[in-house]
Amino acid sequence: MKGIAGESGETSNEATPVNSNINGVAILEFILRFLAAGGTLGSAMAMGTTEETVPLFPQSILLNAKYSDLPMFTFFVIANSVACAYLVFSLPLSFYYIIRRAAKHSRIVLVTFDTAMLGLVTAGASAATSIVYLAHKGNVNANWLSICQQLDSFCERTSGSLISSFASAFLLMLIIISSAIAISLS
Amino acid sequence: MKGIAGESGETSNEATPVNSNINGVAILEFILRFLAAGGTLGSAMAMGTTEETVPLFPQSILLNAKYSDLPMFTFFVIANSVACAYLVFSLPLSFYYIIRRAAKHSRIVLVTFDTAMLGLVTAGASAATSIVYLAHKGNVNANWLSICQQLDSFCERTSGSLISSFASAFLLMLIIISSAIAISLS
Repeated sequence: MKGIAGESGETSNEATPVNSNINGVAILEFILRFLAAGGTLGSAMAMGTTEETVPLFPQSILLNAKYSDLPMFTFFVIANSVACAYLVFSLPLSFYYIIRRAAKHSRIVLVTFDTAMLGLVTAGASAATSIVYLAHKGNVNANWLSICQQLDSFCERTSGSLISSFASAFLLMLIIISSAIAISLS
Repeated sequence: MKGIAGESGETSNEATPVNSNINGVAILEFILRFLAAGGTLGSAMAMGTTEETVPLFPQSILLNAKYSDLPMFTFFVIANSVACAYLVFSLPLSFYYIIRRAAKHSRIVLVTFDTAMLGLVTAGASAATSIVYLAHKGNVNANWLSICQQLDSFCERTSGSLISSFASAFLLMLIIISSAIAISLS
């Protein structure tokens, strides 16, 4: 495909080693973005569908635990959903960079949003992690007891959804770095 | 001062509008880095020195609360200390960019570390925030009671230290974006 510089002040000199490098970085970025979108979607869904009902024998009532019981888990679901939506919408722009190689200025806008999303996903994953830690171990000093003895499957599901969220945060870091490399090459 | 291109494949053409822009961005980045270092130092110190001893009248014992009682607060102190140390060490390199304007490749290394530090500071601040939230409000569903009635000054200090940590995370975002702009200009 022909690479035509669309932005002012930028030239496209095709078939040079520098430009083939940009193309490689742009393809890598597209793949990373796709994986990060999948990771955030997976973790938002895994957390959002977590629900467990256990019978409490002494009182003969049912204890129902779901993600919205804890505001940090709700934030986790929202943060991952927002990041997933952003990443899906950024995919066409990322594909555009594979075709049109030199586009420094719009790349900076994308880096800005990527950085904000990294902050959002990391904050969500980290807030949920401290709650999962408390649920597993409790804290003697604050007199907060572990709840994972009663809610075993709830704890497992929430712990599992953290993994893909942290993986997505790591992928977003790689996206920012690859964007910086692409900007330096163009 | 004279700008001489130190890295291979890079040219320094002084007195052009583009280069004066780079200089402005480099000075801005230096100031942001300095502020972020101060912010992380302040929040690490505020959290690290938080300690409160309150008498528990019924049992006539002293209840002593400090940051190391909760692992998330310890992580917060470590994350902010590490980020502060990195930012202080990166200041000379940032100053070097003001003098030598075109240095794309070493800037990418700095962006990599900046991104990692953004993740670290955000994770620390976010983990501590969920604990501060629990300490203030508690959680009925998990049967975790608020501890801020007893530990009023402890809760205030820990809440306060979060602000400068989130401000530092925001400054780190601006540093990454300004680095991307500087790379695009050089």
